[in-house]
Amino acid sequence: MNLDDLVNTTGSWWSGQGDQSDIVVSVRARLARNLADFPFIRRCSDADRDAICRQVRSVGEKLTEPCRFSFLDIAPMSVLDRQFLMERQWISRELSEGTGARGLLAGSDDRYSVMINEEDHIRLQVLLPGLQLEEAWEHAKSLDQHLETHLRFAFHPDFGYLTACPTNAGTGLRLSVMMHLPALVITKQMEKVFRSMQKISIAVRGFFGEGSQFMGDFYQISNQVTLGQTEEELIGRVQEIIPRLLEYERMARDFLVREHAQDLGDQISRGLGILKTAKKITSEEAMDHLSKVRLGISLGWIDPVPIATVHRLIIQTQPAHLQKRHGGTMTPSERNIERARWLQSEFSHSGDSHRSGPEAIP
Amino acid sequence: MNLDDLVNTTGSWWSGQGDQSDIVVSVRARLARNLADFPFIRRCSDADRDAICRQVRSVGEKLTEPCRFSFLDIAPMSVLDRQFLMERQWISRELSEGTGARGLLAGSDDRYSVMINEEDHIRLQVLLPGLQLEEAWEHAKSLDQHLETHLRFAFHPDFGYLTACPTNAGTGLRLSVMMHLPALVITKQMEKVFRSMQKISIAVRGFFGEGSQFMGDFYQISNQVTLGQTEEELIGRVQEIIPRLLEYERMARDFLVREHAQDLGDQISRGLGILKTAKKITSEEAMDHLSKVRLGISLGWIDPVPIATVHRLIIQTQPAHLQKRHGGTMTPSERNIERARWLQSEFSHSGDSHRSGPEAIP
Repeated sequence: MNLDDLVNTTGSWWSGQGDQSDIVVSVRARLARNLADFPFIRRCSDADRDAICRQVRSVGEKLTEPCRFSFLDIAPMSVLDRQFLMERQWISRELSEGTGARGLLAGSDDRYSVMINEEDHIRLQVLLPGLQLEEAWEHAKSLDQHLETHLRFAFHPDFGYLTACPTNAGTGLRLSVMMHLPALVITKQMEKVFRSMQKISIAVRGFFGEGSQFMGDFYQISNQVTLGQTEEELIGRVQEIIPRLLEYERMARDFLVREHAQDLGDQISRGLGILKTAKKITSEEAMDHLSKVRLGISLGWIDPVPIATVHRLIIQTQPAHLQKRHGGTMTPSERNIERARWLQSEFSHSGDSHRSGPEAIP
Repeated sequence: MNLDDLVNTTGSWWSGQGDQSDIVVSVRARLARNLADFPFIRRCSDADRDAICRQVRSVGEKLTEPCRFSFLDIAPMSVLDRQFLMERQWISRELSEGTGARGLLAGSDDRYSVMINEEDHIRLQVLLPGLQLEEAWEHAKSLDQHLETHLRFAFHPDFGYLTACPTNAGTGLRLSVMMHLPALVITKQMEKVFRSMQKISIAVRGFFGEGSQFMGDFYQISNQVTLGQTEEELIGRVQEIIPRLLEYERMARDFLVREHAQDLGDQISRGLGILKTAKKITSEEAMDHLSKVRLGISLGWIDPVPIATVHRLIIQTQPAHLQKRHGGTMTPSERNIERARWLQSEFSHSGDSHRSGPEAIP
């Protein structure tokens, strides 16, 4: 697989399709697995890591179900390419910045991917657009079963799957839901959400996962602990929480539309205006405005682009995507100019087919 | 004269014409005069004020040269109408907020006007677009001579024309130049300008004169003292200073274009973008963006509207102009919405005939 070929493609999880897509961007089901014949990563010798990487790679490359996989060797990869894969949500910061033999099995169906030698020997994930929790779990289970046909996983009859960090033991399943919660941010209710999620051991993270800052009103909601619960229980817990968050966000949107339509319309319209006219723009500022545009589309107030385009622009205006497309490294200042140029061309291009321009916003 | 008829007219000093009009908006020549047969305003009885007002009004209404004049009675006028006249730069805050009989003689040629019973019995002024200092003085002198044919002014052979405040005595002449100095503001050189102007007794005031805040990078430069100098000396002093300020501003513009074209283009392009898309906007913010658009036009980077339109929009989006056009009082919040609506319609309308859109900005 050539990363350069991916620069102009889009990810299927950006499609803006699926249930509750006005608020839910995507879901991710992740399973942590370790090979029974090797120690956990932190206790591995370099030779162990090599052996694990080779073994998982070899199995992955032979799979035809649920799809084919290409191996990407992370260790010798440039910083730019590793950041590119992170922006695409295929690898984590930990895998990108780790040491020793490590890799990614990238699915020919881009919903599937497998990190090798991250915190655990294997981290397989399924990413789907919209709120498809059970589907994501079913797909992950299927990939897991195909891998398990050829690999012997560390499993304990009492504890379940064994993992480097005890919180992941048991099912090894983490379910994440990427939600767009601009109305809760505008009405300053996110602190309350953080506190109540913490109480019930639900993690809230930024767009680019663990350790990433909150940008563009995007939040990843996921279970913190897998130990002591079955997969069905975990799915049930997340399925119980997400509708409540959806309801809070919808109530906040209704409130804003009812009581502050003019302020909200102003923010959305200006956001679109700035995306169309800025000559330089940071990633953070672009995401803020793209978030407002996404909200405007969801409310039916504007239709300059499909939601999928907003998602695509969020990913493609990230630093590594910009530089890959440009064909070389760029300074932050050069990126800000290139990002603005691109956003302007995307929005002015789409402007011709406006269903409704800023005039239609309250 | 019906003020309502003025709502849709433009002032000739907004025309964006005249010498150095890339930087100089307008010049004003003002003469302070007092009637010899009455005490200064602060020592006037109500009967004195009435008599002064009647006498000057009667003379003014008989003039046919340099133009005809209509009397506007300020005392019974609504706050809104008085603010409207201030926004048009026909009356001062002092006349608007004063007490007792007072009025305005508004010229059929709107370059001429006469305030009655402001700080002095008579304050006549001439407002011209661009840098036309001598022309403004010649026009003011002509109006003064026509008035003096019918009125006896307080004059002392040693001190010249006597005025309520000694700094105005002598010629009673104040020359003001309204300059647009965005590059000196962006390069943070205005403090230096203030200090050096103060040293040579040159006053620097905001768009709406004494006591008004600085907005939209507009500054009125004027002589502080008239005593002890002839009119020619005063004009000479101002004529000496203005070219230096013009040079500083042009050097700052050149520097920005040479070293920071991208930042400058970003500010101009975003300014235009926000004017086109905001759903609510304060007067101050609108002036800031209109200032950037004016700079963009002067640099030849954008041409969405003529400079005259920028001037017109600055005046017509002021609170009283908005309300007069609306036909009644509006809350600040309602004005912000109406101001945004109007700016949007003006700029989206003119957008069709763009010589160059934001794409052309560096």
